[in-house]
Amino acid sequence: MAKIKVGVAGYGTIGMRLADGVAAQEDMELVGIADLKPTLSLRALNESGMPYDLYLVDGADKADFDEAGIPVKGTFQDLIDQVDIMLDSSPAGVGAANKEKYYEPNGVKAIFQGGEKNSVADVFFHGYANYEKGVGKDYLKLTSCNTTGLIRSVDALDKDWGIDKVAITIIRRFADPGDYHRGLTNALKMDKAPTHQAVDLMTIMPHIDATGILVHTPVTHGHIITVVATGKQKITREMALESFKKHPRIRVVRIEDGFLGNASLFKYGRDLGHKRGDMYEIAIWEDSIVESGDDIMFAINIPQEAVTIPETMDGIRAAMKMQMTSEEGTAETNKYLNIGGFKKFEK
Amino acid sequence: MAKIKVGVAGYGTIGMRLADGVAAQEDMELVGIADLKPTLSLRALNESGMPYDLYLVDGADKADFDEAGIPVKGTFQDLIDQVDIMLDSSPAGVGAANKEKYYEPNGVKAIFQGGEKNSVADVFFHGYANYEKGVGKDYLKLTSCNTTGLIRSVDALDKDWGIDKVAITIIRRFADPGDYHRGLTNALKMDKAPTHQAVDLMTIMPHIDATGILVHTPVTHGHIITVVATGKQKITREMALESFKKHPRIRVVRIEDGFLGNASLFKYGRDLGHKRGDMYEIAIWEDSIVESGDDIMFAINIPQEAVTIPETMDGIRAAMKMQMTSEEGTAETNKYLNIGGFKKFEK
Amino acid sequence: MAKIKVGVAGYGTIGMRLADGVAAQEDMELVGIADLKPTLSLRALNESGMPYDLYLVDGADKADFDEAGIPVKGTFQDLIDQVDIMLDSSPAGVGAANKEKYYEPNGVKAIFQGGEKNSVADVFFHGYANYEKGVGKDYLKLTSCNTTGLIRSVDALDKDWGIDKVAITIIRRFADPGDYHRGLTNALKMDKAPTHQAVDLMTIMPHIDATGILVHTPVTHGHIITVVATGKQKITREMALESFKKHPRIRVVRIEDGFLGNASLFKYGRDLGHKRGDMYEIAIWEDSIVESGDDIMFAINIPQEAVTIPETMDGIRAAMKMQMTSEEGTAETNKYLNIGGFKKFEK
Amino acid sequence: MAKIKVGVAGYGTIGMRLADGVAAQEDMELVGIADLKPTLSLRALNESGMPYDLYLVDGADKADFDEAGIPVKGTFQDLIDQVDIMLDSSPAGVGAANKEKYYEPNGVKAIFQGGEKNSVADVFFHGYANYEKGVGKDYLKLTSCNTTGLIRSVDALDKDWGIDKVAITIIRRFADPGDYHRGLTNALKMDKAPTHQAVDLMTIMPHIDATGILVHTPVTHGHIITVVATGKQKITREMALESFKKHPRIRVVRIEDGFLGNASLFKYGRDLGHKRGDMYEIAIWEDSIVESGDDIMFAINIPQEAVTIPETMDGIRAAMKMQMTSEEGTAETNKYLNIGGFKKFEK
Repeated sequence: MAKIKVGVAGYGTIGMRLADGVAAQEDMELVGIADLKPTLSLRALNESGMPYDLYLVDGADKADFDEAGIPVKGTFQDLIDQVDIMLDSSPAGVGAANKEKYYEPNGVKAIFQGGEKNSVADVFFHGYANYEKGVGKDYLKLTSCNTTGLIRSVDALDKDWGIDKVAITIIRRFADPGDYHRGLTNALKMDKAPTHQAVDLMTIMPHIDATGILVHTPVTHGHIITVVATGKQKITREMALESFKKHPRIRVVRIEDGFLGNASLFKYGRDLGHKRGDMYEIAIWEDSIVESGDDIMFAINIPQEAVTIPETMDGIRAAMKMQMTSEEGTAETNKYLNIGGFKKFEK
Repeated sequence: MAKIKVGVAGYGTIGMRLADGVAAQEDMELVGIADLKPTLSLRALNESGMPYDLYLVDGADKADFDEAGIPVKGTFQDLIDQVDIMLDSSPAGVGAANKEKYYEPNGVKAIFQGGEKNSVADVFFHGYANYEKGVGKDYLKLTSCNTTGLIRSVDALDKDWGIDKVAITIIRRFADPGDYHRGLTNALKMDKAPTHQAVDLMTIMPHIDATGILVHTPVTHGHIITVVATGKQKITREMALESFKKHPRIRVVRIEDGFLGNASLFKYGRDLGHKRGDMYEIAIWEDSIVESGDDIMFAINIPQEAVTIPETMDGIRAAMKMQMTSEEGTAETNKYLNIGGFKKFEK
Repeated sequence: MAKIKVGVAGYGTIGMRLADGVAAQEDMELVGIADLKPTLSLRALNESGMPYDLYLVDGADKADFDEAGIPVKGTFQDLIDQVDIMLDSSPAGVGAANKEKYYEPNGVKAIFQGGEKNSVADVFFHGYANYEKGVGKDYLKLTSCNTTGLIRSVDALDKDWGIDKVAITIIRRFADPGDYHRGLTNALKMDKAPTHQAVDLMTIMPHIDATGILVHTPVTHGHIITVVATGKQKITREMALESFKKHPRIRVVRIEDGFLGNASLFKYGRDLGHKRGDMYEIAIWEDSIVESGDDIMFAINIPQEAVTIPETMDGIRAAMKMQMTSEEGTAETNKYLNIGGFKKFEK
Repeated sequence: MAKIKVGVAGYGTIGMRLADGVAAQEDMELVGIADLKPTLSLRALNESGMPYDLYLVDGADKADFDEAGIPVKGTFQDLIDQVDIMLDSSPAGVGAANKEKYYEPNGVKAIFQGGEKNSVADVFFHGYANYEKGVGKDYLKLTSCNTTGLIRSVDALDKDWGIDKVAITIIRRFADPGDYHRGLTNALKMDKAPTHQAVDLMTIMPHIDATGILVHTPVTHGHIITVVATGKQKITREMALESFKKHPRIRVVRIEDGFLGNASLFKYGRDLGHKRGDMYEIAIWEDSIVESGDDIMFAINIPQEAVTIPETMDGIRAAMKMQMTSEEGTAETNKYLNIGGFKKFEK
């Protein structure tokens, strides 16, 4: 079977990781990436040998790239002409414009990231919670980083024991490492409740009542979410742990093993030798799981830079009908991204 | 009636505010404060005219104070000899030793802060939730800053509608402004669950099932707690708001009015002209209150430096039988600390 | 002699402190303040009893203030009609527009803050370094917070020993406490050299060669500047210390006394009981002063929120010819702001 | 020629990078690493396939490692028996004890990191500034991260133009990513001057007069140092730039290319695909270089986690007489660590 040909629009925090993710899928081919300016990330890509072909989006000035010594392969249209599907991680709103101007006229499928409006896509997608709804569709929108990780955990409990209701508290990292265009200094910042991640969860899992509060914090390594979940039956600590431990994209970690917080997980990813120190799995602290009457409460770590990459690969598989079920699709993604291998190191 | 004579042991973050709090109570007299070293806070007190008499605890070297030009009035025993009751905000463990060596032998009552073990006191005390249990007792221990503020909000709902269960997420400030002996840099830090504040709440309010998770954050201005509360009946957003708005020690604030987070409240306290910019009230964001099925969820701001001062004044009133009920005792405290006056500025 | 009538345009971080500063000058009268929106600071002013009359600038909607329950006295023109001089701490650029539309047509003098272009004023002013140039002038522009504090220290050395050259490193706080509109998270940020504060110093002190580098840091309490100064003669550690100790607006502090950094000075200001915990003096660490060959090196703390207030009061005195010399003008300002009184607490 | 056999004691932030550094030198063999506890870093090493053999130092309990599933090869003595030279990155003081108990009795050479006292070694070593002094010596001590990077830049100027004097300001990162045992929150912290890095520079380069001030900042990615250097002749901006650009371990970067601060360089290292995102080179901002009279001023970025690795490899080469000159020794190190290759990407 011919490899599925994939392009990436927008080589930012998400886009660069999508490109690496596609390049690791042996049944896909990364045709190229597209961007507007010779950013720091593109300069680094160039210094590392320019492994991916670069195409320029509308408005880009090739002279800027020449001046930076970064080779350019062609135009955005040139890229579109070669691909089956685009992963669009452009700034919010640009994806919708790309759809109208490039994807629809050229019959190219696309997967949009969390910044676009839901209306841009046929399906708001999650690889575990609603894979089948994405099968064969032209336009998918991925859940955002927090929602993607949150749904993994809630879906794990829901599949095993049934979930009726969740109340979440998102302790959000405000910026990514290296961000200078946004920041927060010595302050916690409130968002109006309910936070959109709870609303988004209900779109994907409409049988669950979800709400929550989001508080921004001045850190860069990983969101932490606490979840108070009400099951269809009482879910004990042991039942929850069982569900989490068997999920390939969830790491169950312990404070006593040195996982003291989000920065420990960032360090761990670096020490594993992962590119950029990235982590595809969310972590759940075993020491955080407590029973609250008949509810179960726990805390999740969301590695915001990389967490949506596997589910986006799942999305390609669904949209392109590479695999027809969540079980098969996620298994292929996991194999190529080497997800779940850590399980054998557990005691 | 003669004024109640009060001393303060330990002139740190809490102790200095206890001293100011007592000095503001017209039916009490601050006899003096006691400490070990010529700290920055004592140097500031001295520069501002040394309004309080200073006594030296065991182990202090008067030469250190002479060198700093700080006048000393006498020994700890000299202070004990003049007081009816001591507020002990010494480092953890020192309070228990003081009790054995000074308070019990001299027949002096005492109120301990959150760092001491519960066993040091006859009653673990909160001015609203269990004032009556403290009446006439010799030794009280105050709830910690987070617990004090949390109980205000839960007690407000409990008195009006009945509460069965709470699940809390504490987003904790790691250090106070000016702290150099502890710090956290670009990291969120997990504590083992359940967090002690939930356990402490159950000690004060044994009819409630409480648990929760605490996450440390690298900021200095105010903890934020989210609470998921299960009522004996469904508590609507309006019902919760009604309970919070009428509580003298709770400010209901709104993001749209500029209360964007904990740092806004710190700024607001400074702009009010309060000494040190302190705030005695907790704040609850009106925009954070959401219904989660039959549960109610909301977010509280805890001004950690000053929040326990009013409840400690309540404790003096209870222990010294100055007022016999929570209603009367808290009203006197509020009057002298000018708490609740802000209500008239509300729309 | 009739009191000089002063108005303040813009009740932000600087404006609110200018208002308090004027109110403390017994030979001046604060006629009122002017602003555009019912900000958090105005809400706090209102809750504290609305001690200052509020006027609305162009574009303000009185309904917003009515809704917030904040009383309004009149229009900006109403304020202008009553004053001799305006202190303009409006957002950058607005001051110049105000000058053209209000100050010039009404024959009102004005002092602008650092955000305006130098061309808005007749003189770029500092109370110690060039007071006499401001005497009788209509329009002054104050140096920015860093430049104001820096010049105090360099002028102190220059007056005593002569200075030829300075090379500075500004370790800048990125935001003020309570700021949510700007922030920096886990990053140091470079500015292009030379930094404007060095250029500004040369405008005020043209006989000195100044350059420097500015690095932004994610903190809110006080800039720190290191200075490498080349004297006309070798300036020893003792000579520098002598100059700094006798300056009323410089505090010489020591690490061993507990002044561990900028946050210690913020805490000290709060513990002194100053409104908002503000500090008018810069601090110089005695433990930082070192000789570098024939140069002298030292570190300054700049309390960015309040440091320009005294020099602005000096500016009023100069512009209004209240005092004709720096010595007399600054002495009056210091008397009313209680600056220099701390000297008596030194060992 | 047989490969030089190297062991690493202490698998912390520095030790793990030393091990990787040695493993990359084709003329060396990493025999193994040694540590005390199953740290997070060792857990990560194990999950990544345990590429290095682990030996246990005195006091280690093998049961702890068994429980964590981490294989152990032998004792510290077993490691010592196989090596020619040890890289000791144990906690401060342990290196000296190791020398007495293990290295001297077994005739094994050793290189100590910055935490040990200078007296532990025959030579305080830097690969560029005094390589020849280390040739054939038994015990070397490496300069600390700041000193190592600082000396690179000063030595570059000194070799080309001659340097008489430097005055430095170190804007220090307080913790590494993932550190929870130390932290600083919303504060700058002063050290007593002169800072030790200036003193250390004089030990290595005794013909230079050096002093400076160190200020700690609450960030984790890279120290920034500003240097005011006095040459034997006037060094212009162009002369300095020329010296910096030709140095293999110095990157000259520009703000306008996106290198906005220390966090940009951390991001750049990650995007290059370097293990852990590490960077061996220091960076100097072209936009920071300014002339201060006859002095030259500039700002350096020090990637604290990895910067000493190349100079330590140099140290092995010197101590083991693998190369007899700085030029040859550093060239070999650079070749195997792929340092200087970035030069071809410059415009």
